[in-house]
Amino acid sequence: MKKNPIVEITVRSEFAAAHRLHARELSDEENARLFGPCNNKNGHGHNYDLFVTVRGPVDPVTGMVMNLFDLHTIVKEHIFDVVDHKHLDEDLDILGGRTSTAENLALVFWDIVEAQLGRFAGVELAKIRIHESRGNIVEYCGA
Amino acid sequence: MKKNPIVEITVRSEFAAAHRLHARELSDEENARLFGPCNNKNGHGHNYDLFVTVRGPVDPVTGMVMNLFDLHTIVKEHIFDVVDHKHLDEDLDILGGRTSTAENLALVFWDIVEAQLGRFAGVELAKIRIHESRGNIVEYCGA
Amino acid sequence: MKKNPIVEITVRSEFAAAHRLHARELSDEENARLFGPCNNKNGHGHNYDLFVTVRGPVDPVTGMVMNLFDLHTIVKEHIFDVVDHKHLDEDLDILGGRTSTAENLALVFWDIVEAQLGRFAGVELAKIRIHESRGNIVEYCGA
Amino acid sequence: MKKNPIVEITVRSEFAAAHRLHARELSDEENARLFGPCNNKNGHGHNYDLFVTVRGPVDPVTGMVMNLFDLHTIVKEHIFDVVDHKHLDEDLDILGGRTSTAENLALVFWDIVEAQLGRFAGVELAKIRIHESRGNIVEYCGA
Amino acid sequence: MKKNPIVEITVRSEFAAAHRLHARELSDEENARLFGPCNNKNGHGHNYDLFVTVRGPVDPVTGMVMNLFDLHTIVKEHIFDVVDHKHLDEDLDILGGRTSTAENLALVFWDIVEAQLGRFAGVELAKIRIHESRGNIVEYCGA
Amino acid sequence: MKKNPIVEITVRSEFAAAHRLHARELSDEENARLFGPCNNKNGHGHNYDLFVTVRGPVDPVTGMVMNLFDLHTIVKEHIFDVVDHKHLDEDLDILGGRTSTAENLALVFWDIVEAQLGRFAGVELAKIRIHESRGNIVEYCGA
Repeated sequence: MKKNPIVEITVRSEFAAAHRLHARELSDEENARLFGPCNNKNGHGHNYDLFVTVRGPVDPVTGMVMNLFDLHTIVKEHIFDVVDHKHLDEDLDILGGRTSTAENLALVFWDIVEAQLGRFAGVELAKIRIHESRGNIVEYCGA
Repeated sequence: MKKNPIVEITVRSEFAAAHRLHARELSDEENARLFGPCNNKNGHGHNYDLFVTVRGPVDPVTGMVMNLFDLHTIVKEHIFDVVDHKHLDEDLDILGGRTSTAENLALVFWDIVEAQLGRFAGVELAKIRIHESRGNIVEYCGA
Repeated sequence: MKKNPIVEITVRSEFAAAHRLHARELSDEENARLFGPCNNKNGHGHNYDLFVTVRGPVDPVTGMVMNLFDLHTIVKEHIFDVVDHKHLDEDLDILGGRTSTAENLALVFWDIVEAQLGRFAGVELAKIRIHESRGNIVEYCGA
Repeated sequence: MKKNPIVEITVRSEFAAAHRLHARELSDEENARLFGPCNNKNGHGHNYDLFVTVRGPVDPVTGMVMNLFDLHTIVKEHIFDVVDHKHLDEDLDILGGRTSTAENLALVFWDIVEAQLGRFAGVELAKIRIHESRGNIVEYCGA
Repeated sequence: MKKNPIVEITVRSEFAAAHRLHARELSDEENARLFGPCNNKNGHGHNYDLFVTVRGPVDPVTGMVMNLFDLHTIVKEHIFDVVDHKHLDEDLDILGGRTSTAENLALVFWDIVEAQLGRFAGVELAKIRIHESRGNIVEYCGA
Repeated sequence: MKKNPIVEITVRSEFAAAHRLHARELSDEENARLFGPCNNKNGHGHNYDLFVTVRGPVDPVTGMVMNLFDLHTIVKEHIFDVVDHKHLDEDLDILGGRTSTAENLALVFWDIVEAQLGRFAGVELAKIRIHESRGNIVEYCGA
């Protein structure tokens, strides 16, 4: 076994939210053409399936990269409790006016989680993955 | 093997929709207390997973209860195309003012599918099952 | 639409537990032969996937059979909090000395849930389903 | 708890097979029209997901309806080993010339399993369910 | 948030196909020994689960790497419509005589998708993943 | 198509085991605080879902990185048969006294699989992924 092996751990969280894809810099016609049914004025919604992955050395005493309870708590308090049973565009400030694509959600969630990891020495955020539906998946690794 | 065995066939369809639980006969306070986060004013949403089941004898020549393509077409044209990427309360008439609980959706979908099955001799609707989320499931068998 | 239609609603809960199949009325040899690897002295474990289904008329005002929050709360407080991260045979009293087969778990969970449903008029317990693993499933409908 | 409660237990098995839907009593044109792409001359295939359910009283000593190992063995030896990695129409005799619809498979599997259950007193076959694909499901309960 | 962050988006598609593993440069005996049941003369089949992943910067106006509809259309028209309900070895030219292992399918699908991405500036193919069955998965990242 | 493309193949295996998180270098109080319910004295358990991934060039004759049967056999004989239906802490030597976190399991499984791959020229171990439960996932890539 390697000295100080680096392992990734992932927690999963599911939330239900409404949203509408509508870019404020585009005309209504351009939005309708670009986003199609996702531009529906009254919105639609998803059960989002969110995977948050961090990376770090395995502590030789505890056998953990970081305590999974702590990672679950971060995701619950700073993401799930903010977005679950909400309209992503009308109820939230976290998107800062950007369209609520899964890409933008991943970027925003990255910043939210990263801001909480500072107190866990040696642990770094590795990946945010979002399944918007069974067929649409987005991943961001900080690049 | 039995003569004229009765078999059930099920097709599955997934749609994404927004909704808000709000009973028009209750006050805002009662709605908030009753439905909790599901009463969020701007709505939330789900990837609904819908299973439609019919029952009938197996045709000895074709080996089918009814053609699965026909059942998929019924569900696509009369349910999926109506509800996908919509707000169930604001965009649709099918609920007739009832709250958009999964129970009511199942009842409404039952009537929609049953109205299309008349031309399939011997086939009867057996079940509508809806997974509103991974943890919430509703079934209606026509009782 | 029927008057007072009867609908089933199901909530899902996953718990992690250890257990050992060992019938106290049988000898060690009989237990080993009967239960095979499931009789391993130090136990083994599962992520149990539990589905609790109740049946009742849909309230015309709320559109609900019963409030899903209440059903989730019953399952959480009276089952999940009792069995999760426990050894079913060594930590619990609910099995009353019976072997911890999925069959017996379903029977015990039935009684636990049924005892909580009395205050919900018109609602009756319909089914307990347990997936012990991907390939082993047990259902009890009160028969 | 009821005296001699009746419980259902289910085992799951997945097999990979090729098949072609083609009714020998119909013309090529009728087959093409009826079965569409499923009538492709060289066949297509599926990972079939098979659920076999039996029903019976729970033995008060063992806590089992029947030994799950025995039920798994029946399904493995009499179904899986016969159909896995085979062409259902060209390699097998079990369909007796009938089209290899999921309906007919369920009927044939019913007879196969039922013939093996005679030696398990009090246990009766309850259901054969086949998921031909994620969206196509068939169930037979012996009716 | 980084300037011009690079995100991966994935679309999923499921198709049903028959195939037979048989290397034309090997003898029948070698093929039988090497591929075992997968060499069955009349073939077998799968519900293939295909994931196609592309990578690129997130457009600051639309919030998208590329339009998911376009990626779904590429996979549907150039892969799904070609392979679904077909025999991979007997109906298709795309494998060019190579055995229809999931590895070779991934390599062929890579070339098919990459040829369609040229008109999407800044977007590059990142990964082809195929689940041939629940237990067999193949990934190709262009290396 | 590239010359000698490098592809990853993954096999999946599910095993049921009990375990208890308890670091021998910590006091009982520290263990209880650190691991919470996972420190339950009599243990708990999981259906572990294990994914083993290897990487290598695709053989131009066989179309395979390595024979999937061989990889399945390695995982079955050297991991599944060792850990399935066991208590990871009390029945096994492979952890060498380390806590049975999913991180440590991944590290130990890495060494076990790697020791078996020497006879497969050009094939290297790429990843061990373990789903301890639906919400807790660990990956080790040899870093």
